Amino acid sequence: MTVTSVSGFFASGVTCGIKHSGDSDLALVTHADGVPITATGVFTSNKMTAAPVQICKEYLSTTGGQAAAVILNSGNANAATGEKGKNDARAMAQSVAEHLGCKTEEVLVCSTGWIGYPLPIEKIKKGIPELVESLDSAGGLNAAKAIMTTDTVPKTVEIRKETFTVGGIAKGAAMLEPNMATMLAVLTTDAEIDAPTATKMLQEAVSGSFNCLTVDGAESTNDTVLLLASGESGPTNKEELAEALKEACAALAIQMADDAEGSTKTVFLSVTGAATDAEALKGARDTANCQLVKCSWYGEDPYWGRIAAEMGAADIAFDPETITISYGGQVVYAHGEAQSVDKKLLKEHMAGRQIKLGVDLGQGSGTAQVVTTDLSHAYIDENMRTS
Amino acid sequence: MTVTSVSGFFASGVTCGIKHSGDSDLALVTHADGVPITATGVFTSNKMTAAPVQICKEYLSTTGGQAAAVILNSGNANAATGEKGKNDARAMAQSVAEHLGCKTEEVLVCSTGWIGYPLPIEKIKKGIPELVESLDSAGGLNAAKAIMTTDTVPKTVEIRKETFTVGGIAKGAAMLEPNMATMLAVLTTDAEIDAPTATKMLQEAVSGSFNCLTVDGAESTNDTVLLLASGESGPTNKEELAEALKEACAALAIQMADDAEGSTKTVFLSVTGAATDAEALKGARDTANCQLVKCSWYGEDPYWGRIAAEMGAADIAFDPETITISYGGQVVYAHGEAQSVDKKLLKEHMAGRQIKLGVDLGQGSGTAQVVTTDLSHAYIDENMRTS
Repeated sequence: MTVTSVSGFFASGVTCGIKHSGDSDLALVTHADGVPITATGVFTSNKMTAAPVQICKEYLSTTGGQAAAVILNSGNANAATGEKGKNDARAMAQSVAEHLGCKTEEVLVCSTGWIGYPLPIEKIKKGIPELVESLDSAGGLNAAKAIMTTDTVPKTVEIRKETFTVGGIAKGAAMLEPNMATMLAVLTTDAEIDAPTATKMLQEAVSGSFNCLTVDGAESTNDTVLLLASGESGPTNKEELAEALKEACAALAIQMADDAEGSTKTVFLSVTGAATDAEALKGARDTANCQLVKCSWYGEDPYWGRIAAEMGAADIAFDPETITISYGGQVVYAHGEAQSVDKKLLKEHMAGRQIKLGVDLGQGSGTAQVVTTDLSHAYIDENMRTS
Repeated sequence: MTVTSVSGFFASGVTCGIKHSGDSDLALVTHADGVPITATGVFTSNKMTAAPVQICKEYLSTTGGQAAAVILNSGNANAATGEKGKNDARAMAQSVAEHLGCKTEEVLVCSTGWIGYPLPIEKIKKGIPELVESLDSAGGLNAAKAIMTTDTVPKTVEIRKETFTVGGIAKGAAMLEPNMATMLAVLTTDAEIDAPTATKMLQEAVSGSFNCLTVDGAESTNDTVLLLASGESGPTNKEELAEALKEACAALAIQMADDAEGSTKTVFLSVTGAATDAEALKGARDTANCQLVKCSWYGEDPYWGRIAAEMGAADIAFDPETITISYGGQVVYAHGEAQSVDKKLLKEHMAGRQIKLGVDLGQGSGTAQVVTTDLSHAYIDENMRTS
């Protein structure tokens, strides 16, 4: 159920001492013993880009979309760390490359954790021999555990198709927390695909999953999704692979929402009837990120007034008379007025772990879906202090 | 120190029974006994516009910028109430007009409170005779109290210039709370000004004050700022009046921030060095509305990582190497790295009621200022349930 669900891939996770807790904090995913294969990545659009993101982009450009391994650390994001940060990221790749016998630029690098503190590169270097020795064809779960920050459970996925498999590990929903920031995911597959096509497919899969996941509207300095494709299963149906990547990303995104810091609800917000898809997404994101609305979900309150007011403020085509709002399929607001509802059913729906909120704007055929969370006391507790 | 600080204006506040608490909930501000004078307003840009906002705009258009009175109720926003809502708003104006002997369209209407519930118009109508009888040249504070919702103190202002006075009352910061929504302000002056010039001046004053106040990024269905100008002090220096209106609006805006629901900090965020003023404002607003950043203020944590990451994500010209971040005048981050600080001084600053946060983007000469608040447990408590 992880990156090592795909034959030919190995992984490991060890403790090198970045985290004060003593939990594992260094992970490695490799293809065979360092044989480069097709690789691509989708990265944060935040201009405050962490060093490992810059290095990944540089290496993928140098190799033209090839990699043999991904090294990941948790506990420190290596972000806002200047030139030293980039050298440290390169040093991580170089050390792994020496052990595996591949080129430095064939090793991709991800970091997650505190922003603005120098990476303890010596600890990482010391941990790499054990990390490489621990590589195992069943090591995916150890890798998934070693990239956890404030996650309470490791996130993993496996999608089996007739001719190939996609596996994956991930951590954290985007910017659940300011310092243990970042969403990271590594996907592996034995499907056969060239780098440009893989890039396009991965972008589409991310766009329909992780990019629809919004916990607090923030995008991290380190957000990274990587894909390694070995081609060892032979010729691959491209549509089937695109579909499998979407399924894998969606499964990981929902695991992230369910495990979002301090959240008690996972909310699936569907906007239909917008003038355009872009307007649907704007309205959906604004509403999902509104802290007043988030509070009402925490309180299991199906009050529609704030939903309508957010949509009205979203600078999209909007008419209070044409908007329809539903919770759990029950229409609570339509034709400019509150609607009568089955209160018991509605209460039951709001009390569940998953809330389904539908908004039809009655303006056109634009649609969008986002997955988000509520805003709880625990969220504040976890985010009010960094030290 | 209120709307009745200006001679020629009268005000009152009474209990008509909209609020279950029994607190006063109906207010009236009039010029003399209903003699129309110059009037203008600035209203919410939310497309989910409440009935009283629609009626105010209609009346000001009909009269060409004249009004004799403003009636305001709290406890019910008369928003999302369809055609009945508009009829109810008109009925409020009509009833006051009959008592004062002016035209219906010379009475402006404001409502604040719950969204989506029919206005109890009969209670309001029954309260109007007492409301008119209570009009007093010292009644401004009663009016200010009667428009409070979740405010803990009435908000009032008086700006005395050599030849004229500006007085005002206000309630609530914009969308402090989803159901008791709305920022309302009524300003009075004896300065002489025509309606088009008054409109321009009021827009500028609002833009530099209330519109720089962001508590949670939401804009209410009912936000309204009204100005009544009698001209009784004779010819007025226009620049001086513009200045006085700015001062009055700024004073009310800061009172709102200080009294924002569940807030423990008022944060003055100044962005300089942006490519343009618009980019400075975008960065400032995104940062001020980021719930992670707000949590850190609540925790009195001067951590700059999230500030930098928000600016980096704001889709404005940004370079992690040129951004400088300071708290209370102390630089905490510059040249891409954390800076050493006087920890004791910094701790003292963060522990105060007011926090001063400075961000210089090092990109150009664009600037912006916003006033905002932290995000506390109490905010969630007050917003998690509406019933």
